[in-house]
Amino acid sequence: MLLPVIMAGGTGSRLWPMSRELYPKQFLRLHSENSMLQETVLRLESLEVREPVVICNEEHRFLVAEQLRQIKKLSNNIILEPIGRNTAPAIALAALNAIKDGDDPVMLVLAADHVIHDVEIFHAAVEKAIPFANANSLVTFGIVPTGPETGYGYIQRGDSIGNLDEGYKVKCFVEKPNLPTAESYIASGEYYWNSGMFMFRAKKYLEELEKFRPDIYEACKKSLCELPDGMDFITVDKESFALCPDESVDYAVMEKTTNAMVVPLDAGWSDVGSWSALWEVNEKDTNNNALTGDVFLHNTEGCYINTDEKMVAAVGVKNLVIVNTKDALLVIDKSQVQDVKKVVEYLKINQRSEYKHHRDIYRPWGKSDLVVAENRFNVNRVTVNPGGKLSTQMHHHRAEHWIILAGTAQVTIGEKTFLLTENQSTFIPIGSIHTLENPGKIPLEILEVRSGSYLGNDDVIRIKDHYGRN
Amino acid sequence: MLLPVIMAGGTGSRLWPMSRELYPKQFLRLHSENSMLQETVLRLESLEVREPVVICNEEHRFLVAEQLRQIKKLSNNIILEPIGRNTAPAIALAALNAIKDGDDPVMLVLAADHVIHDVEIFHAAVEKAIPFANANSLVTFGIVPTGPETGYGYIQRGDSIGNLDEGYKVKCFVEKPNLPTAESYIASGEYYWNSGMFMFRAKKYLEELEKFRPDIYEACKKSLCELPDGMDFITVDKESFALCPDESVDYAVMEKTTNAMVVPLDAGWSDVGSWSALWEVNEKDTNNNALTGDVFLHNTEGCYINTDEKMVAAVGVKNLVIVNTKDALLVIDKSQVQDVKKVVEYLKINQRSEYKHHRDIYRPWGKSDLVVAENRFNVNRVTVNPGGKLSTQMHHHRAEHWIILAGTAQVTIGEKTFLLTENQSTFIPIGSIHTLENPGKIPLEILEVRSGSYLGNDDVIRIKDHYGRN
Repeated sequence: MLLPVIMAGGTGSRLWPMSRELYPKQFLRLHSENSMLQETVLRLESLEVREPVVICNEEHRFLVAEQLRQIKKLSNNIILEPIGRNTAPAIALAALNAIKDGDDPVMLVLAADHVIHDVEIFHAAVEKAIPFANANSLVTFGIVPTGPETGYGYIQRGDSIGNLDEGYKVKCFVEKPNLPTAESYIASGEYYWNSGMFMFRAKKYLEELEKFRPDIYEACKKSLCELPDGMDFITVDKESFALCPDESVDYAVMEKTTNAMVVPLDAGWSDVGSWSALWEVNEKDTNNNALTGDVFLHNTEGCYINTDEKMVAAVGVKNLVIVNTKDALLVIDKSQVQDVKKVVEYLKINQRSEYKHHRDIYRPWGKSDLVVAENRFNVNRVTVNPGGKLSTQMHHHRAEHWIILAGTAQVTIGEKTFLLTENQSTFIPIGSIHTLENPGKIPLEILEVRSGSYLGNDDVIRIKDHYGRN
Repeated sequence: MLLPVIMAGGTGSRLWPMSRELYPKQFLRLHSENSMLQETVLRLESLEVREPVVICNEEHRFLVAEQLRQIKKLSNNIILEPIGRNTAPAIALAALNAIKDGDDPVMLVLAADHVIHDVEIFHAAVEKAIPFANANSLVTFGIVPTGPETGYGYIQRGDSIGNLDEGYKVKCFVEKPNLPTAESYIASGEYYWNSGMFMFRAKKYLEELEKFRPDIYEACKKSLCELPDGMDFITVDKESFALCPDESVDYAVMEKTTNAMVVPLDAGWSDVGSWSALWEVNEKDTNNNALTGDVFLHNTEGCYINTDEKMVAAVGVKNLVIVNTKDALLVIDKSQVQDVKKVVEYLKINQRSEYKHHRDIYRPWGKSDLVVAENRFNVNRVTVNPGGKLSTQMHHHRAEHWIILAGTAQVTIGEKTFLLTENQSTFIPIGSIHTLENPGKIPLEILEVRSGSYLGNDDVIRIKDHYGRN
């Protein structure tokens, strides 16, 4: 049985303001009801696979756990990277974890943030690759190009192996080409886009990694902690992993090994690497507009418009991307979407929150949305999932007032524990130890009013935390 | 002494989404710290004038009163039109009110929503017009045209009266011309734009109105109520005024009278009749962008961007108008701004709130902002001005929870009256008679949580209202 390894470590900013450092692309619902991570997991259904391993940034662990819970694919195999070190180390961690009980599974390595339209063709390509991987090849899936893209690396195929078009030796990997070169690649029919999806045996990958990059291999071996913590996350030692070189699997292994193979994939793939790419893969109206949310159009063509709550009216405009979130709005020409990085740079330099997180902040127990922010008081709308528990905590600088809007809360303040339901409220003085949980079956909605001289989220002394955040 | 008569009755939708039916252009801060109405009043300072009369729609009376209070120009002369009947009746109401004690002042009739850059030149033109008005002329101020605009009516001057360029007989009024006609007007040097500003004696205006449109004269006479009500507003009988013909002062009087004169005005005037006109009169950066609010630009030219709270990033775009309010966003090409009416039509047909009011709803006692709206509960952030009092009221379908965020509230529920301060709260069960006022010196900020099966603003039984809204 295949072991799916899903790489969910990206912190891409190319889809800002929808993607944020704390809520990147793979967690967004960009193309369906499900997030891209969820789609990636669900796309494996009907293949014979083990429970997937997800590798993500430590900061995203509760998001990953919650998104897997939502699609009823709870996983004990979430590997937490304390820092990003690119794909070669990430896959090494997954491989080392996979072989620790003497096993040697075939790993299907997937990115958590790609769109694949035709799942059956994808499955067929995966099935084709299995015998090659079993025979110790390192398989990369080569996307059959639909045009002379200059934004991707290419793979040139060599001799055919097996039946017609089942797979090829890799002749070489090439960097992102210029347009004439890309055109010659397409004309030759010998080139594929480098998708970043792979299949190989865990031990074979580690063997090749040890051969070509023993530094990465050793650093990963040292970093993988022996025991998963209480939350069933697989943790990685930060100090050791920080010493691991930052390298892609292509550079570290695939371009060097003599066992590289390519299996063609022609399944409507996109890495959705920009707003214009998202426009391309989405459904459009008769004027070529791709729309999400409450939108009114007049005399408008070729636009991508996404609004999360308020109404957007677009009149007399062409080829614009308009993305409206609770705290930031982007209006950008579709031909210049790569310049969204200028905005993110500006936000980082000015230490603004809009590059890091949304107005909604996701927590292991649910989320919190800052609806009113003033100097001396602010108001959060807090949603606690069924079974969710806030940490037992205390604040030095703020008092809190909670009103229950929906559901039932079990509140503890000092020594007292009591239930509150819709329309009831309580007050937590500065310095009181308190906690709250949702003992019910429906989400608990509360309104939290903070008041005091300092209202930052970092004024919290955690006495006990159900999620290991002490 | 001149009697300024400020016509503030418009409900223009050409500046949607900033202007709304309940908060039209004249009340917006579009061009300075002050609203256009406030600017119109303040522009009269240093002229020898009486306390101005403001004519507005009844629905806007508290807005007018509050805006005048803010600039310390409290007025007892706010005439309330129960319905809009255009300028001839509006001016007639002001004139009839002005002569009721046997007086006959010279009226300076101004629109509340124009920009005039050079106040000294404006004052000089006003001073020039006074002797003409005193001598029973009906003076219109003719804007010296800056180009062949096709969006304005024109006035052709006749013989000069008085000193050079002081004033002219009106030869004729002409409708909005086509471009070649407008160009010939400009070339002749004999034409002015029709600004909608006038000066005449109250009795002379009424005399001419009675001569040419006795129907309007009679309807207005019948409509003006004898006694101002408790709030010192001057009220107009709706039933009688509904029978008054809808007519502009130009059609009803100015085009017919033989006493029409034009005094030229070259003072940087604009009626700010569109987003592109607002862009024109505003200050611009080196790339010709006019910006208000938290805006980041990259490679962007010739845009008007106005955002009331969230950050806007515009990249690679040209000649766009981007206007962002709490509940609606407009993105429109600057050359097609007249099509904003398509949006407003759509909103009206679909009975959406976004054409009628902002998320902030203005009340005589302050304002209310709907920050969370759900099926079974919603949350309003309520600001009560010092001295402001909510009506004594009761709701059939909702309970309310109030938390004091800042300031002090005097609350009455049933028979009990008590004070609440910061961080205190109270609960109002369904069916309880209750009221709230701000007895303090600073604005009272409260958070109101409504819960129940129906949460509309119309579920209110007013038992007593300080502002005559029973």
